Amino acid sequence: MGMPLELNTMIVTKGREKRVEENLFLLEKDGYRLYPIEIPIEVRKTMDSDANGIALIKKVEWQNSRTTLTYQLISLNSTN
Amino acid sequence: MGMPLELNTMIVTKGREKRVEENLFLLEKDGYRLYPIEIPIEVRKTMDSDANGIALIKKVEWQNSRTTLTYQLISLNSTN
Amino acid sequence: MGMPLELNTMIVTKGREKRVEENLFLLEKDGYRLYPIEIPIEVRKTMDSDANGIALIKKVEWQNSRTTLTYQLISLNSTN
Amino acid sequence: MGMPLELNTMIVTKGREKRVEENLFLLEKDGYRLYPIEIPIEVRKTMDSDANGIALIKKVEWQNSRTTLTYQLISLNSTN
Repeated sequence: MGMPLELNTMIVTKGREKRVEENLFLLEKDGYRLYPIEIPIEVRKTMDSDANGIALIKKVEWQNSRTTLTYQLISLNSTN
Repeated sequence: MGMPLELNTMIVTKGREKRVEENLFLLEKDGYRLYPIEIPIEVRKTMDSDANGIALIKKVEWQNSRTTLTYQLISLNSTN
Repeated sequence: MGMPLELNTMIVTKGREKRVEENLFLLEKDGYRLYPIEIPIEVRKTMDSDANGIALIKKVEWQNSRTTLTYQLISLNSTN
Repeated sequence: MGMPLELNTMIVTKGREKRVEENLFLLEKDGYRLYPIEIPIEVRKTMDSDANGIALIKKVEWQNSRTTLTYQLISLNSTN
């Protein structure tokens, strides 16, 4: 038994984020994942790419073996 | 920094649960709390009371320093 | 990436615990596992067996993809 | 009840780390803290300082309301 979860320290979008409004995005990931909420973390397109920017996660939802994040982009890497 | 959270191994309702439908309940708690999801856990009215029953948490939501649980009661203690 | 971990709400020994002294035991489990520490939790031999007793976890160690628990048995089920 | 813990995404040493050998360090922190293990994370002297380098946490120990980390510095910021 036990509940499998994954501790994450950055947001990897794989280009699947959906813009909700201006700088607010929604991202759905497989499995139950633990992210720091309201703490600045990197947003990357892939695990090995450079950071696109920095975001604050505003909401985390766990349901049906999926994690849904709502995050606010607070800074963008100008080189991207 | 760091994100404070609390690991919980049972649901303590303090009588604040709201019935959504038949045996499905909604409960809001202060702070960010980590609960096992889809795993049978005890439901109690207070920390020191006997178990009211056993539930499966179906959904966990973290937002604005609050945790919202949706849980399904799967068995009831007949003595309560 | 991300770090896989497993949230556990009871101790399942599979008979592999080692007695350190009187009522203090050591148990090694695969993977990184999150257990509540200093909070009474059930000890079972297998996931489906009845509880052997209640324990307090005194120490958790994560290293080399293994979790080592030190727990103190605080009550025993007389029927076992 | 519940077990308070803190999710951490970087190592903040406050200059209290102890060198065990070459690039291996020991750091003791108050409270129970959850860190990603075997995943590159930043090491900083204070929360607001620049990163000193990047480390892999090799061991996490929880006991007596303290967290002891063993980490290996894998890269150093040359400007520090």
